[in-house]
Amino acid sequence: MHTLLVVLDLAGTFVFALSGAAAGVRKKLDLFGVLVLSFAAANVGGIIRDLLLGAVPPPAISNWRYIAVSLVAGLMMFYWSGSIHRWRSAVMVLDAAGLALFAVSGAQKALAFHLNPVAAILLGMLTGIGGGILRDMLVSEVPIVLRSDLYAVAALAGATVVVVGSLVHLPPGTTTIAGALVCFGLRMVAIRRGWQLPTPRQVLQAHEDTQPDPRAKKG
Amino acid sequence: MHTLLVVLDLAGTFVFALSGAAAGVRKKLDLFGVLVLSFAAANVGGIIRDLLLGAVPPPAISNWRYIAVSLVAGLMMFYWSGSIHRWRSAVMVLDAAGLALFAVSGAQKALAFHLNPVAAILLGMLTGIGGGILRDMLVSEVPIVLRSDLYAVAALAGATVVVVGSLVHLPPGTTTIAGALVCFGLRMVAIRRGWQLPTPRQVLQAHEDTQPDPRAKKG
Amino acid sequence: MHTLLVVLDLAGTFVFALSGAAAGVRKKLDLFGVLVLSFAAANVGGIIRDLLLGAVPPPAISNWRYIAVSLVAGLMMFYWSGSIHRWRSAVMVLDAAGLALFAVSGAQKALAFHLNPVAAILLGMLTGIGGGILRDMLVSEVPIVLRSDLYAVAALAGATVVVVGSLVHLPPGTTTIAGALVCFGLRMVAIRRGWQLPTPRQVLQAHEDTQPDPRAKKG
Repeated sequence: MHTLLVVLDLAGTFVFALSGAAAGVRKKLDLFGVLVLSFAAANVGGIIRDLLLGAVPPPAISNWRYIAVSLVAGLMMFYWSGSIHRWRSAVMVLDAAGLALFAVSGAQKALAFHLNPVAAILLGMLTGIGGGILRDMLVSEVPIVLRSDLYAVAALAGATVVVVGSLVHLPPGTTTIAGALVCFGLRMVAIRRGWQLPTPRQVLQAHEDTQPDPRAKKG
Repeated sequence: MHTLLVVLDLAGTFVFALSGAAAGVRKKLDLFGVLVLSFAAANVGGIIRDLLLGAVPPPAISNWRYIAVSLVAGLMMFYWSGSIHRWRSAVMVLDAAGLALFAVSGAQKALAFHLNPVAAILLGMLTGIGGGILRDMLVSEVPIVLRSDLYAVAALAGATVVVVGSLVHLPPGTTTIAGALVCFGLRMVAIRRGWQLPTPRQVLQAHEDTQPDPRAKKG
Repeated sequence: MHTLLVVLDLAGTFVFALSGAAAGVRKKLDLFGVLVLSFAAANVGGIIRDLLLGAVPPPAISNWRYIAVSLVAGLMMFYWSGSIHRWRSAVMVLDAAGLALFAVSGAQKALAFHLNPVAAILLGMLTGIGGGILRDMLVSEVPIVLRSDLYAVAALAGATVVVVGSLVHLPPGTTTIAGALVCFGLRMVAIRRGWQLPTPRQVLQAHEDTQPDPRAKKG
């Protein structure tokens, strides 16, 4: 179980670091800015989870593997970024994968710390969305989690599968994989089909005729 | 005493969650974005206080009541928001109430953890302003606390009443209510009368002839 | 050793508080906004370090000296700011000094908590850059650390000198002063000479014909 958590966490770290670095490249930051964004996107969700659980110092700081994985991913993205346009969709897929891996590993860790089921689901979601929120705030964008296509809902669903699975005593390996697939699948389908959560009625109308709001400018 | 703290905290959570949700509705976010904003506005101040006190996991995560109260407030605001324009002033009043409740409950909790008086006042203020700061940052606005009408000063005054009251051994119930009223009253009067703290002289002049929107000055 | 840490920390607090206040004055915030920015710039790096080390409540909250030093620096900058234009370069020099002092004191504290060398270097850097990142985010700017001239690299170099010096058993006083000078010197030379880290090639080109500053797009 512990090994599974570490492997999931490192895999999530790698893909989220790629997504952070891609956002940095898209924003034309220099090398260090790109590396800071990889590290932040990859580790801040887990760091927040660990602070909330009282698990300090967090592995993201004290375990060199997380740092190394983040930096390698950041350097790869920085030096191999041939075309900027390509990265827009790559960021989305990588981001969905990172979201799935972190949502399930975060929920597992919260369960291991004996949190109640609701708190474990919430912490799984926070682990998944924390890094991406900081990534977007650092480049002065409204976080994707607030505006888009079942993003946090997918993390919530993945974490819920893990926690409910643990309540009914299914094997953790199975529920973890199932949870990650549910989260990733939900997020990808939402992107493809443009699934959206409801917005308030009068808002929806205003939204469709003009672009009055800051989000519309981002391209 | 403990019951009083919990009740104040839940009441503050409810009104701050409404203020967060109203900001989300005003920014035309989808349902989940609105709920994230309610949760963030309502709980981040207390979570920061608890992390600084070492009281982990924070009740905002581990106690389902805070989560439930935040979500109910968010859903209410989302589905009952008839007219957007109405909310601008509602946000201000709710925000002032949340500020008052959190400032006094934050100061009480810091005293319960045996912090020194200055630190307890500061933590009370932080509890009050933390959620609102993150709410504003999440929707890419300069936080209201930095630009407006005795906002943090009101929280500071409320927390000071509680801490000074405790130093001179007044009953905590009395000082708590007095502190909350001082904070709420100060904030409401500041809004009505347009009370402002001083700004540097040369700044004041530049401020009055050009663009009214703080964000417009960037670039 | 402990006294050295406290003195460095208070000196760093003072200069970072001046830099935060100067940013607030430049953004035309009111008195409290300026004081919040001084406190945030001066203390958030250390608070994050302490949370990650589990050293709660952090001295920045529980020790009145940090609060007093931040407020005095904020008031000085607020009332003595004769000309706005002057502050732009003053902010940079003060910021470099604060960065140097915090990078070395952060690394020392992490070593005192028995973190491994890589983690100690990283925490030193985080201590140095954390306050400045929040300062810039609070006034809605892309943090300077992400866009400019060997900023975080300088902090990294200073922290590395301290940690490597401790590994080879040099006296802590010497390595601390050396680390601070390396960090400050590197940052100042980078500013003077316009030293930059590499940016991706295709990005560099796009960067030079259109608006150079990402902040210019906001509006």
